[in-house]
Amino acid sequence: MEEKVSVGLLGLGVVGSGVIHLIEDHQEKLAHQLGCKVEVDKVLVRNIEKARNIDVDQSLLTTNPDDVLENPNIDLVIEVMGGIDHTKEYILKAFSNKKHVVSANKDLVAVHGPELQAAAVKNNCDFYYEASVAGGIPILRGINEGLSSDHIQKIMGIVNGTTNYILTKMDEEGVSYEDALADAQQLGFAEADPTSDVEGLDAARKMAILGRLAFSTPVDLQDVEVEGIHGIELKDLRYAAQLGYTMKLIGFANFFDHELEVSVEPTLLAKNHPLASVKNEYNAVYVYGEAVGETMFYGPGAGSLPTATAILSDVIAAIKAMRLGVSGKQLNDMQFPKTLRPKEKQHGQYYVRLCVEDKTGVFSEISSIFHEQDISFQRILQTPVDEKDSAEIVLVTHDTPYSHFEEVLNQLKSFDAVNEIKSYYKVEGDA
Amino acid sequence: MEEKVSVGLLGLGVVGSGVIHLIEDHQEKLAHQLGCKVEVDKVLVRNIEKARNIDVDQSLLTTNPDDVLENPNIDLVIEVMGGIDHTKEYILKAFSNKKHVVSANKDLVAVHGPELQAAAVKNNCDFYYEASVAGGIPILRGINEGLSSDHIQKIMGIVNGTTNYILTKMDEEGVSYEDALADAQQLGFAEADPTSDVEGLDAARKMAILGRLAFSTPVDLQDVEVEGIHGIELKDLRYAAQLGYTMKLIGFANFFDHELEVSVEPTLLAKNHPLASVKNEYNAVYVYGEAVGETMFYGPGAGSLPTATAILSDVIAAIKAMRLGVSGKQLNDMQFPKTLRPKEKQHGQYYVRLCVEDKTGVFSEISSIFHEQDISFQRILQTPVDEKDSAEIVLVTHDTPYSHFEEVLNQLKSFDAVNEIKSYYKVEGDA
Repeated sequence: MEEKVSVGLLGLGVVGSGVIHLIEDHQEKLAHQLGCKVEVDKVLVRNIEKARNIDVDQSLLTTNPDDVLENPNIDLVIEVMGGIDHTKEYILKAFSNKKHVVSANKDLVAVHGPELQAAAVKNNCDFYYEASVAGGIPILRGINEGLSSDHIQKIMGIVNGTTNYILTKMDEEGVSYEDALADAQQLGFAEADPTSDVEGLDAARKMAILGRLAFSTPVDLQDVEVEGIHGIELKDLRYAAQLGYTMKLIGFANFFDHELEVSVEPTLLAKNHPLASVKNEYNAVYVYGEAVGETMFYGPGAGSLPTATAILSDVIAAIKAMRLGVSGKQLNDMQFPKTLRPKEKQHGQYYVRLCVEDKTGVFSEISSIFHEQDISFQRILQTPVDEKDSAEIVLVTHDTPYSHFEEVLNQLKSFDAVNEIKSYYKVEGDA
Repeated sequence: MEEKVSVGLLGLGVVGSGVIHLIEDHQEKLAHQLGCKVEVDKVLVRNIEKARNIDVDQSLLTTNPDDVLENPNIDLVIEVMGGIDHTKEYILKAFSNKKHVVSANKDLVAVHGPELQAAAVKNNCDFYYEASVAGGIPILRGINEGLSSDHIQKIMGIVNGTTNYILTKMDEEGVSYEDALADAQQLGFAEADPTSDVEGLDAARKMAILGRLAFSTPVDLQDVEVEGIHGIELKDLRYAAQLGYTMKLIGFANFFDHELEVSVEPTLLAKNHPLASVKNEYNAVYVYGEAVGETMFYGPGAGSLPTATAILSDVIAAIKAMRLGVSGKQLNDMQFPKTLRPKEKQHGQYYVRLCVEDKTGVFSEISSIFHEQDISFQRILQTPVDEKDSAEIVLVTHDTPYSHFEEVLNQLKSFDAVNEIKSYYKVEGDA
């Protein structure tokens, strides 16, 4: 066996180093699985002299992208450089030169995935991006192949490790949002500018990718309604725990009656829900299929080696397809047109915390505001608070149209005895 | 598009009916994914006249296996009849007639999997059996493809729904083993003769199959050390809960230093372990890979539609391979020779419950028996019991060679002040 497949890398950060490490470490297994060797031929870097914690032959490094993209020896390009616009140009160039591409770039795939996929198909190339969602968890393959025979109706994902770490820390150690964030930053689970994570944007990108594959419909990033965890109060986590819930940042993607609904929002999850026990920086994706029922895929959402593992599984799939002569034949085009479910057709259970005047009749009047909108309660908690003559009321509704709940919020705002609507969240599962 | 692939079924029980239902229900999606129709051509049954809860054209039914196995129209055979010896002959005949086979038969695959796989390869046919392990969970595909680039070191599985239901019921409702079993039987989660489930044999079959695929080594059913949950006492579940553990029937498959260790045994699992929250009849498989770290796949372990979903995902994979002209090219042969880890090299943490005489110095003597074998304790619980002058001592050891623990058990047996060794179990994870 003297055949080999040469790969080129775009980028050599922590994930790129992990990929090179795994390729070297697994030569024997790769040769066994593929019947050929896999060699790294060129690596695009910004600075050749930079000190790295991986031993790479200097002659492999280049600062000229064309040494990878126009290199006739290279069959497959692994993109681990990040970025969107010029990265997209690089990948398009790779396809036009008949090179297969494996990418870990969720930002790029979320925004330009369908266009890149189309370019791949046009050139009989493969485009894989398992690592772009939930790091080491083989979730895209699970949806594309494992559940290929089912109608997937609902996906719920904990797809951002930073926010899950922060919420776990708050819940288990009773620290504030600010302290938990600082702790996550110190441990490297959150970046210095945590905006994209804590505002839910990172999770939204992953939900757009998941939704596209699960429902065969062209989900755009703009279709995802996003709310982050910034400024979440410990008090709500405490009440949630008392009521049998745990707070998680959940990405939802539903597809019923050919109507799509995708969102990312802090959610009170019943403690017996499979996602409720997913802690710290771990990720998990819950998939509800019409036939299979409830399934869940759990694992590390980030990290150099887990992400590199996902990339390498894509490399293996792409090389298998090359060697079998079946490249560019992935059958995952967008079968269904996209119709977003209008807000007025959305519904759910809701948690709301009110600060009210502590006097006779107030609760009765609040109840009747809900009652007028035909909303009944599943749980009620009332406690006095420190402020004089105030009380805090926590309500969990039964399932109700969102429009009714919104109307209640409007009425509560203009109701004198309600000092403040402190918070409200979606609720999922029976506690 | 007027092409079609004809499939034949062996068996038309609940799973077979589910397969026919899904194939009919998903024609549009199948045609879209495969570029051809999928039709059921013949179904082998025992009794054509039998009333069924699915509407099948009587002319499709036959009692002659050759109407499927020798049928020139049929490209692919789905085996859902169960049984081992004559089922194996049917499948071998299908292969020799160049038909691909999808099977849900764990008993058969556990015992004759390697032989059947070899026959498939020899005939350029595919042999898939995703449904044989953990029903609707795409775990074989997860291991074979999703984690194909990793070295899997350890698998832990809750792969038998009956026993998990019984243990959950005991744990959550405080009922006895016998009552929980009766309840499971009434709900259809346990068979009238529950031996194969409660004695761990069913789980052992699945662990043999998982071990083979994960480690590319020829694991036999006989390699699996098996202990069931029959007669487990509620008391041990109570103590476990007090100590932060939950009792589960866990299938273990480890592969370190090219040494294999496979077992099924009741285990005290730390409550923060991902498998600890898998309840009732659900299954889950925890996979630890050198690079990816911890992953877990969760879902329904049985049931007509979940199992049929797994079968249909195999059917889709097999038809894709046919249409791409790459059948019989699965690269999952047994790469590594098998060496079982000798018992004396095994080690772990252990829980032991002793009934002892309640008098001065007894605990000190028991401690020194452990100390002589260099075993230290992680947790100790002592409580008086109803019997006069007796006490119960529960110990959880730190990690220790099994041989040392065995020696301690032997010495405790002959130590007068120990009235009885009530129970001992493996412990996994830090509570």
